[in-house]
Amino acid sequence: MSRFLSPRFERLEAYVPGEQPQEMQYIKLNTNESPYPPSPRVFETMSRDEIERLRLYPDPAGKRLRENVAKLYEVSPKNVFLANGSDEALAFAFLAFCDEEHPAAFPDITYGFYPVYCCLFGAPYIAIPLRDDFSINCEEYYGINKTIVIANPNAPTGRMISRDDIERILQTNPNNVVIIDEAYIDFGGTSVVSLIDHYDNLLVVHTCSKSRSLAGARLSFTFGCEALIADIDRIRYSFNSYNVTRMALAAGEAAVDDEAYYIDMRAKIVKTRDRTAAALQDLGFVMTDSKANFLFAKHPAVSGSELYGKLKAKGILVRHFDKPRISDYLRITIGTDTQMDTLVEALKTILAG
Amino acid sequence: MSRFLSPRFERLEAYVPGEQPQEMQYIKLNTNESPYPPSPRVFETMSRDEIERLRLYPDPAGKRLRENVAKLYEVSPKNVFLANGSDEALAFAFLAFCDEEHPAAFPDITYGFYPVYCCLFGAPYIAIPLRDDFSINCEEYYGINKTIVIANPNAPTGRMISRDDIERILQTNPNNVVIIDEAYIDFGGTSVVSLIDHYDNLLVVHTCSKSRSLAGARLSFTFGCEALIADIDRIRYSFNSYNVTRMALAAGEAAVDDEAYYIDMRAKIVKTRDRTAAALQDLGFVMTDSKANFLFAKHPAVSGSELYGKLKAKGILVRHFDKPRISDYLRITIGTDTQMDTLVEALKTILAG
Repeated sequence: MSRFLSPRFERLEAYVPGEQPQEMQYIKLNTNESPYPPSPRVFETMSRDEIERLRLYPDPAGKRLRENVAKLYEVSPKNVFLANGSDEALAFAFLAFCDEEHPAAFPDITYGFYPVYCCLFGAPYIAIPLRDDFSINCEEYYGINKTIVIANPNAPTGRMISRDDIERILQTNPNNVVIIDEAYIDFGGTSVVSLIDHYDNLLVVHTCSKSRSLAGARLSFTFGCEALIADIDRIRYSFNSYNVTRMALAAGEAAVDDEAYYIDMRAKIVKTRDRTAAALQDLGFVMTDSKANFLFAKHPAVSGSELYGKLKAKGILVRHFDKPRISDYLRITIGTDTQMDTLVEALKTILAG
Repeated sequence: MSRFLSPRFERLEAYVPGEQPQEMQYIKLNTNESPYPPSPRVFETMSRDEIERLRLYPDPAGKRLRENVAKLYEVSPKNVFLANGSDEALAFAFLAFCDEEHPAAFPDITYGFYPVYCCLFGAPYIAIPLRDDFSINCEEYYGINKTIVIANPNAPTGRMISRDDIERILQTNPNNVVIIDEAYIDFGGTSVVSLIDHYDNLLVVHTCSKSRSLAGARLSFTFGCEALIADIDRIRYSFNSYNVTRMALAAGEAAVDDEAYYIDMRAKIVKTRDRTAAALQDLGFVMTDSKANFLFAKHPAVSGSELYGKLKAKGILVRHFDKPRISDYLRITIGTDTQMDTLVEALKTILAG
């Protein structure tokens, strides 16, 4: 760090995203992107007129997209918050709802960005250990009186907690915000968006990066009661009024308008996931019951870092976290059937060697 | 605010951007957008392949664009920081370099977002009054020992300070970061980007919103010595690793590649500005010597709010700030010659009425 950086960032360790090699020579199963293109309607929106209009600022309120999202999710536009990817939405939520008096609480094994936000904004947090089988012990969150953040399905484990569990957490923490990060909800999970009508302390974060094939457009939808949404909107307007680009708004409108396409695409991914899980089991892999667009798997005979390295040498990128409890695991994004067949063959060769 | 929002935001007043009516029926001279489209090369980049690749995350390092920008500005890629508009870059810089020990200092009349960032991140600040003629008294910044933020040209006055003045401010504040916000530099001003080689405390912020017709794409370039850029990059990676969209990266590369187009466009805007200034003077308007893509003008006979309202009724949007010292003024973005002729005619009618 330079001698100018505020000393409160002395110990700030930034989040390290998965590798993004720009040469595209890998089979890329490391950052949970969709192997399928965006809806054909997204292609239609990128017209000459739309590019001409890049000279103009986007609608800072994102009115039309919020209306479309509200319609699809059966909520009011006032329950919808748009951001430049779900990371930005989460950053705003941590800034808004976590402080010395309201420490954050989340699992010890979860999305690695959560503790980074706390460090960035100076909020204390506790990390509550998952059980040995990587399940969340929901009872530990009952009446904990902290700002609770749970990824559901959790990352990188893919495991889910039930709607009933979430309701109990909400009920026993009526004075704290509960943030449910549903980045991976569309691959077989049941969303709790509809609960925002019943709990004024619930915030649900969705992203278009995975289940709408728009990781490159940067767009997220966050749901909550009107007052909570107004809070994070105030933060947003104090940070970057025009946080969502014109092209993301247009792509988002087209995508939300073509839910049928995405339902098919997600079903394909779920089918490929289950097929891949069976093939990996045949190879001796142990894995969690993932409801996300990735598998979280380890092999009793070979370490995670070794598998990661050998796969990379064969042109296949997966994600390996060099962290306590999970360093033996790989997080493997679900690609096309062909890509997953290639992965399985590569693993066979590695294990045979 | 909800009962959940952290009490430190009790008095946070968000920035209010200029009106962005989505129906497009106005002659829009209120948010300093360019009246001209992006470079033809920007249109070419938005190919089917590019849209297909929206399924993938952007390059979080923005390597190729940073290289192109570095080449154009004759610096190293390590001196270049990319953000989702200059508001985001400024937010990161305020967060990184302002705190209790390093209060911010900026003019009392300047970009209205600066005090908002301070409130958002809990940094104290002082606002140093401009002289009566809206010029910055640079001596007041000599050795002030604060994080200095100066928009140059200043907004909404359009007035500039010289390179010599900036060097003196840098030299007398060697232990503080000096942020020069050059959002409007390309309309006749002289940039201080080249000074980053000589001063390790200088950060220069540019935006593609005005002089590259890309307000809707959200893209900014920030320049500084390697250590300062690494600092704000650490903040960025702790907030949103993928802050710049794929489409903004592609549009930025194409735009930077076609500087000739933008030089012409800016020259046209400057010519229209000077022509409009003369016409307004003929109508009795008083104005600052603006080096930006807007004029800052008042009429001795009619108040700013009255002019604003009457222009709006005639379908012309300009910006009026209901703030001390400048409430009699209008900030008028330079549009096409035709748009400015319409404005002048409308003002004639209003003044005659």
